[in-house]
Amino acid sequence: MKINAFAAYAAAEALATFTFEAGPLAAGEVEVEVEYCGVCHSDIHLIDNDWGISSYPLVAGHEIVGTVVALGDRVVTPELGARVGIGWQRGCCGSCEWCLTGDQNLCPASRATCVGHHGGYATRVRCDAAFAVPIPGALAPAMAAPLLCGGVTVYAPLVQFGVRPAHSVGVIGIGGLGHLAIRFARAFGCRVTAFSSSPEKAAEAARFGAHDFVTTQGDGGLKKAAGTVDFLISTASADLSWPDYVDLLRPNGTLCIVGASPGPVQVSATALILGRRSIRGSAIGSPPLIREMLSFAARNEVVPQIEILPLRQVNDALDKVRANRARYRMVLAVKER
Amino acid sequence: MKINAFAAYAAAEALATFTFEAGPLAAGEVEVEVEYCGVCHSDIHLIDNDWGISSYPLVAGHEIVGTVVALGDRVVTPELGARVGIGWQRGCCGSCEWCLTGDQNLCPASRATCVGHHGGYATRVRCDAAFAVPIPGALAPAMAAPLLCGGVTVYAPLVQFGVRPAHSVGVIGIGGLGHLAIRFARAFGCRVTAFSSSPEKAAEAARFGAHDFVTTQGDGGLKKAAGTVDFLISTASADLSWPDYVDLLRPNGTLCIVGASPGPVQVSATALILGRRSIRGSAIGSPPLIREMLSFAARNEVVPQIEILPLRQVNDALDKVRANRARYRMVLAVKER
Repeated sequence: MKINAFAAYAAAEALATFTFEAGPLAAGEVEVEVEYCGVCHSDIHLIDNDWGISSYPLVAGHEIVGTVVALGDRVVTPELGARVGIGWQRGCCGSCEWCLTGDQNLCPASRATCVGHHGGYATRVRCDAAFAVPIPGALAPAMAAPLLCGGVTVYAPLVQFGVRPAHSVGVIGIGGLGHLAIRFARAFGCRVTAFSSSPEKAAEAARFGAHDFVTTQGDGGLKKAAGTVDFLISTASADLSWPDYVDLLRPNGTLCIVGASPGPVQVSATALILGRRSIRGSAIGSPPLIREMLSFAARNEVVPQIEILPLRQVNDALDKVRANRARYRMVLAVKER
Repeated sequence: MKINAFAAYAAAEALATFTFEAGPLAAGEVEVEVEYCGVCHSDIHLIDNDWGISSYPLVAGHEIVGTVVALGDRVVTPELGARVGIGWQRGCCGSCEWCLTGDQNLCPASRATCVGHHGGYATRVRCDAAFAVPIPGALAPAMAAPLLCGGVTVYAPLVQFGVRPAHSVGVIGIGGLGHLAIRFARAFGCRVTAFSSSPEKAAEAARFGAHDFVTTQGDGGLKKAAGTVDFLISTASADLSWPDYVDLLRPNGTLCIVGASPGPVQVSATALILGRRSIRGSAIGSPPLIREMLSFAARNEVVPQIEILPLRQVNDALDKVRANRARYRMVLAVKER
């Protein structure tokens, strides 16, 4: 089977067309004809080899929605023709303690959709059957794409770190992940405050569901908000004034980091001890959690704000993401109609 | 009522005798005749005014066991004559969300036993009735004293941060808190590893119940133990090589800090994100948790290793704690028999 894709041929270069032969479909895998693929900032890190793990030609893309078109041996579900989504992870060992208890994303043998494997900026993509998650009919396929990685990245800690409807949730950074975090937290019934260095995003944060908006630059907004937040999720991959953010937390509060800062996180031990505060990390989510998240999103109409470009304009989409001009998630239409 | 005590008359000075008139007992309070009082490192911080909150004469002591000898108006329990314990906290507002949900130690109006109030290095001490916790008959009074602060400080996070019997627990620092953490974790059925900069403590750590001992200095022991610990509790009030300790954690693991380091805690965000790791703080415990802890300790024979000195030798006891020569908790006998 020949698959057509756009690939990076070297670090930080513009993508160009690439055709490859995928070979026979392995047992336990499914092949998906791609309809849409979201552009996540991690794709750019891979294209640029920021993490030193890239090999070229590299086909990025890991927020994939499409249709199952082939089943490897022993696949029970999904069925041929099912609309499914694939996120960052495409496989796991299936037999470790994490895989067996629903935390497949913690599997030490996790395999990624577009690391050492060709991802979703392509006509077709393959993954282990369990990682092709059914898309609810109520979710438009293009809208569902960014939920597969960006969506579950913010949904997972809200659920797994025990956010309750009565909680006050803060969201740092109003971008691809942040606007979804606002929408999910609002749909949980929480009080939601957006924290952004861009005052011009206040109106949009309100539209996404934020009750309050705090400008993090200059006017002392952070200090004024001290002690008001139960759960604070940082989607900004930036070095923040961490002590100020820990000070935002109420007793028993959590600062959850989903966007990695380049420098270390520095906080006072005393600030954690007094008030029983936590700093926690979270990455993506397991297939059962993705399934739960999609069902929740469909029922509560939690969808990203997207801009769709055809796959042939992938470099324009990447440029927008690189320049932080995506409002708020770029989605590539692979199967043009 | 005249109360005889030992007090610091100025920062960092040796304690000297002090007699004060306590005035009428307030409604809701109880007066306790002190039998034993543990020496906690926090007492030294108060005596030395390290936190800038001390006023003199200062009567330290907040690991108190004694007998209820007077009841203020409206006290229902404890009864006169009951043996009770008093820890760091002697009162709270009683009406905030934290007090009403069993997290009295998070009350913003928390009152401390020996801050702005005379503590347990004295013949008598007073507290709100709820903070005089009954001591189970199976616990020797002198043994129970260090459990009131040191014991609950390590017990609370083991319970509240979800340690399970199948978990691997690491304890950093084998001192007053650390040796109790080993004993509690062992009594939970956990696999327990002691981490210490003092190789000569290996045999005692084993006696407390540690299955393994890792020397944190020099020989690469920390690196070898990477990825082995589910719950790591730091009782060492020291600046540690934090990234090495975060690396000790398994996926989903927690580093819990109960001993404040002077400098900031510095960790990589990526190390938290990958593996869903947490850094959490915890301080003391609420009265219901102290009650639970005492019951657990009595049933499972979790007691500190103590050295008893009479109250008149309080300065010798303080010197030993200052020099880290307490093995492992000094207890003052106030009511000599």
